[in-house]
Amino acid sequence: MESLRHFFEPDRVALIGATEKFGFGYGHTKTLVDQGLGDRLFLINPSQPMILGKKTYPRISEVPSDVDLAVLLVPSAVVPSVLRECAAKGVKAAIIESAGFAEIGPEGEKIQEELRVIAQKTGLRIMGPNCVGLANTSNGFLTTATTKEAMKPGPIGIIAQSGVFGNIMMDCGPEQGVYFSKVVTLGNRCDVGESEIIRYLGHDEQTRVIALYLEGVQDGGRFQSAVGEVAPHKPIVVLKSGRSPAGKAATASHTGTLSGEEDIYSGAFLQSGVLRVENIQELFDLSKSLALQPIPRGSRVAILTTSGSLGAMTADMCTDLGLPLAQISNETIRAVSDGAPPWMNVKNPLDVGPSGLLVKALRALMRDPNVDSVIGIFLIPWTAVQAFENRGVEVDHLFHELSEFQQEGFDQKPFLFSVVGKRELRAAALRVLGGRIPIISSPENAARALASMVRYQQRYPQ
Amino acid sequence: MESLRHFFEPDRVALIGATEKFGFGYGHTKTLVDQGLGDRLFLINPSQPMILGKKTYPRISEVPSDVDLAVLLVPSAVVPSVLRECAAKGVKAAIIESAGFAEIGPEGEKIQEELRVIAQKTGLRIMGPNCVGLANTSNGFLTTATTKEAMKPGPIGIIAQSGVFGNIMMDCGPEQGVYFSKVVTLGNRCDVGESEIIRYLGHDEQTRVIALYLEGVQDGGRFQSAVGEVAPHKPIVVLKSGRSPAGKAATASHTGTLSGEEDIYSGAFLQSGVLRVENIQELFDLSKSLALQPIPRGSRVAILTTSGSLGAMTADMCTDLGLPLAQISNETIRAVSDGAPPWMNVKNPLDVGPSGLLVKALRALMRDPNVDSVIGIFLIPWTAVQAFENRGVEVDHLFHELSEFQQEGFDQKPFLFSVVGKRELRAAALRVLGGRIPIISSPENAARALASMVRYQQRYPQ
Repeated sequence: MESLRHFFEPDRVALIGATEKFGFGYGHTKTLVDQGLGDRLFLINPSQPMILGKKTYPRISEVPSDVDLAVLLVPSAVVPSVLRECAAKGVKAAIIESAGFAEIGPEGEKIQEELRVIAQKTGLRIMGPNCVGLANTSNGFLTTATTKEAMKPGPIGIIAQSGVFGNIMMDCGPEQGVYFSKVVTLGNRCDVGESEIIRYLGHDEQTRVIALYLEGVQDGGRFQSAVGEVAPHKPIVVLKSGRSPAGKAATASHTGTLSGEEDIYSGAFLQSGVLRVENIQELFDLSKSLALQPIPRGSRVAILTTSGSLGAMTADMCTDLGLPLAQISNETIRAVSDGAPPWMNVKNPLDVGPSGLLVKALRALMRDPNVDSVIGIFLIPWTAVQAFENRGVEVDHLFHELSEFQQEGFDQKPFLFSVVGKRELRAAALRVLGGRIPIISSPENAARALASMVRYQQRYPQ
Repeated sequence: MESLRHFFEPDRVALIGATEKFGFGYGHTKTLVDQGLGDRLFLINPSQPMILGKKTYPRISEVPSDVDLAVLLVPSAVVPSVLRECAAKGVKAAIIESAGFAEIGPEGEKIQEELRVIAQKTGLRIMGPNCVGLANTSNGFLTTATTKEAMKPGPIGIIAQSGVFGNIMMDCGPEQGVYFSKVVTLGNRCDVGESEIIRYLGHDEQTRVIALYLEGVQDGGRFQSAVGEVAPHKPIVVLKSGRSPAGKAATASHTGTLSGEEDIYSGAFLQSGVLRVENIQELFDLSKSLALQPIPRGSRVAILTTSGSLGAMTADMCTDLGLPLAQISNETIRAVSDGAPPWMNVKNPLDVGPSGLLVKALRALMRDPNVDSVIGIFLIPWTAVQAFENRGVEVDHLFHELSEFQQEGFDQKPFLFSVVGKRELRAAALRVLGGRIPIISSPENAARALASMVRYQQRYPQ
């Protein structure tokens, strides 16, 4: 665990293969130089005395102080010798961002095997190769270029096997209200693998949910044991590719991974209590639901909607997923019916239409002992929003009452909210509510996320 | 058919229950007044002599010229008598936007039955009640408020049972590059139903694809026969809710619809050749794929990607959906390998990474006799886009080569393109390519859309 700390909170960092030439390595160099490490950063380049206004050193051995983390951008063929130099210098951890290892075939595999042996013999910990390293939003340390908004601290820890995948999660997260604690990319995993990082994030206070993209696990036994240790107190979400023969063949040439047999994986995932998703969108939706909302105590769902159509479709989806629709209590029916327009039929799904009674109904459902969780669906035509705006009511205001209500606390019941309509409407919901209420991409995905939360509760009763 | 023309291309329109008071009816009134119908529009209101600067008439019978379409906003209880007046005046078609009919129970059902009888006895055609009417982008006629961009003419004809659902399709379509020919909302369908509209849109030259949201069909036999007539030359996409008992109960109180047995529907849909989708996003993705691309001649898919991870996941998805991955021909392998970087492995999925060879590879795949269709996946971290921008290359430029290529024509093979990354990247793809290449919300949905296109080809060999 302590050895991993050097990756996330290094005292001194050397960038080996620093460059200011446009192309591979430039973004990494600029990123490291720009993050204010000052004299804790050393650029290594044997042929250029200055890079981006900073003095360089020809080799790591000539750096005049201790270095705990080295980031390597040099070609694969020279990586082993550079690593040996690092080990000799007393470097504790190395991130290898270069490609050209197991993913290109037997030749690269041979070099990668050398790295593994170096790690084993010297105790130098290696992340990669063929990765982009990591980002730690709590101290602002990162080894790959990303946007400023992606570095806003949040509760979700990402472990991605593919480097680019890590980048894309950071690109797409913020526009959906998903923010990260740490983002770790593992690449070909010649040494550090997902199991260790799961344990590390299990202890990380900033991380409330761990989400993984894997093409295959590095070591089944270690994975099971790491998950068994962490999952009971911190949910783990997994997106795994390589389920089919065609997908497996694809992962082999991508990160040199044997994706293994789908049956074994799905059995092992189920047993170990990790929550599996099928795509990036589901990964975001489930992760933020877990991060922002409590785990439900049971499976009975209430659907609260301003659209009858979407209420019906969501009821279908809940049924498909094995989530029973809650039998709303008489007290709730009385509370919601009181003062409601005559067309409103208080049942589940509860369609409040344009009555403006969404929050009143939500309050009643949250108090209802027959209800374990609520899916909210808010649909309003943009022209209705414009009509409000013409009367001086801003679009953000549509979500203020809900925002105030949720600050009262949600009574240990998860509330997942899907806003359907023009992008500007969804953006307003995210702006006003996104920090506390998960705004889910679609009502179907709210049902999917909830089904996973219920599975988690069944596996690890709270 | 001729009787339906009065809904879409009315000569003279009366709005009964016109109002300038904020609330129900205001938006409809303003919409009709603002669309420039001039003296072809008559506002009916017995208590206000002027509305939005326009003279009103106390009743339809006092309008001094013929009227072919009446739009009713009056309370349900008075709708029957107003309809009788319309019939007496010689009005040909009526859209009833008021609610309070079968969807509220037996009392409303009774009034709705009266409407049905009026239609039957007088020949007055009725759309609704409990709908928002329609929009016809080719002449700009619309009976519900919507945004200006939603009225930009396009190839997709929408039939929505729920009025609000029609509004939302129009709100969300343009931001995804989905544009409409006609949007029709049917509500409780006391007279005009989806089967007639399917036939009408089947003959409509502006409509290339028909997409329906249904809670249940009005008449199974008529639906089958309409679909049998239209689907062979114009694809029909259906989103149907009320699959589960809980969903069925929800639709009953929403539009007074009996959703029927799922088994019967799924069997009938399969047989009739309609393409079923599970949610709004799939409806958009499939509809635009069908509208913009040819039907594939077979099922063999090539996956062309800049991301190994997403290539593998999409291969999994294709396998799940029964789409075999094409065996790329030796000629294609030679053509793409020539000049490719050494790490590039020419197979299927074809991961071109950051080589810049996407279009070259696409050209080869389009010519490959072993390939029936291509799914393209474009993923690029935003910081890479920014690095291009810093060198004066605009984000739009990333798609120019593809834009030029697609103008050469796609050789009767569909190409579905998914762009994964920051919103601005997706927006650029839509801006540059969206008019000709369907930009699909995710690689999984590209696989889903393609699977539906293959099913269509199998049902109706081209």
